[in-house]
Amino acid sequence: MSDHGKWTVVDGGVSAARGFSSAGVEARIRYRDRPDLGIIRCSERAAVAGVFTKNRFASPTIQHDREQIERSGGYARAVVVNAGNANAATGASGLEDARAMTDATAAGLGIPAEEALVSSTGVIGEPLPMDPVRAGIDDAVATLNDGGNDDFSRCIMTTDTARKEHAVELTVNGEPVRIGGCCKGSGMIAPNMATMLAFVTTDAAIGPTLLQQMLRRAAARTFNRISVDGDESTNDTVLLMASGLSQPVETHTEAARQFEEALEEVCRELAKKIARDGEGATRLIEVHVTGAKDEADAERAAAAVAESSLVKTAVYGEDANWGRIACALGYSGSEFAQENVAIGIGDVRLVEGGVRVEYSEEDATAQLKIDPVRISVDLGAGAGEATFWSCDLTEGYIEENASYRS
Amino acid sequence: MSDHGKWTVVDGGVSAARGFSSAGVEARIRYRDRPDLGIIRCSERAAVAGVFTKNRFASPTIQHDREQIERSGGYARAVVVNAGNANAATGASGLEDARAMTDATAAGLGIPAEEALVSSTGVIGEPLPMDPVRAGIDDAVATLNDGGNDDFSRCIMTTDTARKEHAVELTVNGEPVRIGGCCKGSGMIAPNMATMLAFVTTDAAIGPTLLQQMLRRAAARTFNRISVDGDESTNDTVLLMASGLSQPVETHTEAARQFEEALEEVCRELAKKIARDGEGATRLIEVHVTGAKDEADAERAAAAVAESSLVKTAVYGEDANWGRIACALGYSGSEFAQENVAIGIGDVRLVEGGVRVEYSEEDATAQLKIDPVRISVDLGAGAGEATFWSCDLTEGYIEENASYRS
Repeated sequence: MSDHGKWTVVDGGVSAARGFSSAGVEARIRYRDRPDLGIIRCSERAAVAGVFTKNRFASPTIQHDREQIERSGGYARAVVVNAGNANAATGASGLEDARAMTDATAAGLGIPAEEALVSSTGVIGEPLPMDPVRAGIDDAVATLNDGGNDDFSRCIMTTDTARKEHAVELTVNGEPVRIGGCCKGSGMIAPNMATMLAFVTTDAAIGPTLLQQMLRRAAARTFNRISVDGDESTNDTVLLMASGLSQPVETHTEAARQFEEALEEVCRELAKKIARDGEGATRLIEVHVTGAKDEADAERAAAAVAESSLVKTAVYGEDANWGRIACALGYSGSEFAQENVAIGIGDVRLVEGGVRVEYSEEDATAQLKIDPVRISVDLGAGAGEATFWSCDLTEGYIEENASYRS
Repeated sequence: MSDHGKWTVVDGGVSAARGFSSAGVEARIRYRDRPDLGIIRCSERAAVAGVFTKNRFASPTIQHDREQIERSGGYARAVVVNAGNANAATGASGLEDARAMTDATAAGLGIPAEEALVSSTGVIGEPLPMDPVRAGIDDAVATLNDGGNDDFSRCIMTTDTARKEHAVELTVNGEPVRIGGCCKGSGMIAPNMATMLAFVTTDAAIGPTLLQQMLRRAAARTFNRISVDGDESTNDTVLLMASGLSQPVETHTEAARQFEEALEEVCRELAKKIARDGEGATRLIEVHVTGAKDEADAERAAAAVAESSLVKTAVYGEDANWGRIACALGYSGSEFAQENVAIGIGDVRLVEGGVRVEYSEEDATAQLKIDPVRISVDLGAGAGEATFWSCDLTEGYIEENASYRS
């Protein structure tokens, strides 16, 4: 445990909160010698919230999850996930396969059919191989355990180079409440793979409506503020389940404020892990914009800088080329006057009043060797503020994504 | 000369039309052993039209050109251009330097001060070295000649690997009219360099108002439909000058229709040369979208596919990974239903009704070996149509842009 002031970081990822068990098994959907199918189970009927991709080629799993949540009135007891096949651009048969996955999971666990959700990640446009999927579900049901987070967080990986988990414990009304989760994502689409998936659990007692509001706000400032290559996938999903086994959290209370802050922290740490593990990346880039007209304008400016191929390659090359940062700000759509702009990298201020100030090129370059690389911008146009994360762009990205699917 | 039906392709680039001479000299602004400063001169007081970057960090040259065109009432006799230094993010002194460049050019040529325009391309944020610039202007004034297009088109290059010119001759009212031009651009920003610049000339007699309308429409469908890395530079400029030495072209006439079609063709050929010469690129990518709700929606969809890092790396890797195309269409913001979408690469149809059809992977891969790579999409949502050009994304892009400025 390490102390972060308002909460402590704890182990256990998606199983850290009371009531949750998980499993990850080798179903051989596409991969060999590694888990590629998993289940998260809640012992209770958990309130559930979801944020999904807006991609018009959204996987049928997205439509199915939305329908399940509506049918159950905002509750779920399990999520089944597979890697290797995104079940996207698969039409009516893809929707049938998504249903078959949740039906098999619900049957195996003895829960109502509408209380199981599903996520898929992998190649787009190919039918799911349902025989190994069904066998994998049986296997996962049989191996669910309280410490299963290792296997589960591993089973959702595609080109990820590391498992991604984070969990915290905070105190609500004098009692411990836990929030934990795991995620995957490495390109917004890995080679032929589609998806950023995140699963967050808590033992707080929160109703579906408040839970959804909190998740939407947290996702907007975390998962929606990262980019590897700017491609929004067909399967992006964030699910949050609340078992209700610890303290109640009601709307407009101090407990809600504290809980939401901790939830945002868990989502932010998970999101940053995705950006840092971007395909071929060597460093996390953190762009912090202040002085924007409003928060949306700050996000626009920070995103343009973080997503610029020229900024990303300059970071990789350890070149403090602030002209590329200025250029990206200029086309971001954010409102400002160039003569009010300040730009810094790490501790070195490079630009004030829209023009270069005296600085040592050596000092600036040194800031680019530090991970994360911190780019700061003040637009001098208001009080809006936002942070956006991405990674450097390297030959490794090209190599991973130019390779054949086979 | 080769016959293209409505017009014939001719030599001479920016000097092809009657009344225009040009020069390119070695001013050593940043480069050695190659021309880096040039002038285009018109013997007449030419009507002029301009389309400029919308980047908020626009170079002072942009502001200066706008003011010059307003002062002269839409006429110009010369353009002076330098490569190596973009004169962007340079504040008040940058504006003074831009003025000094046009003043020196006007003085050298004996023309009114407001009838000279200026463009710059190169590193952002550093002051222009005005001594070599002034000496270069004197040198260029002294060497202006009718066949100077070779030197001029070379002097505007930065990381470009080839000179980019195109010129045509059409028949208006039974008499020959010529339109020709040249451009530069290789990344939207080359290593530390900023800019796509294009200079087009004609001997048609057209007033500034009609000329501006025609250039705006042509640029929207050509220069604004190419991308290398998605970074809109601080200096992007397209200038069109009409000497008036051949046939008159009036609004709402058959001549105007013919002229505009040929102008769009010249701009399109120049724009395609930029996309094909993208930094590190090995192939031109042409994305043609039909069946969109309207032309703007078609452009949105085509741009998303053409700009997707994952589509660009798949082309480089010769992988007919249409899932990445579907994914980009899905997040483009274009309106359609996935079950109505068809996707093809070259002559091979891969997707109909939003799902994969039977095709040979070998045939599809073969289409990716052909330059240009033609990606076709039918959204099944209307009559809108648009084409967008980009290039593949390779290790060469990373290498060029990760290198230090020094």
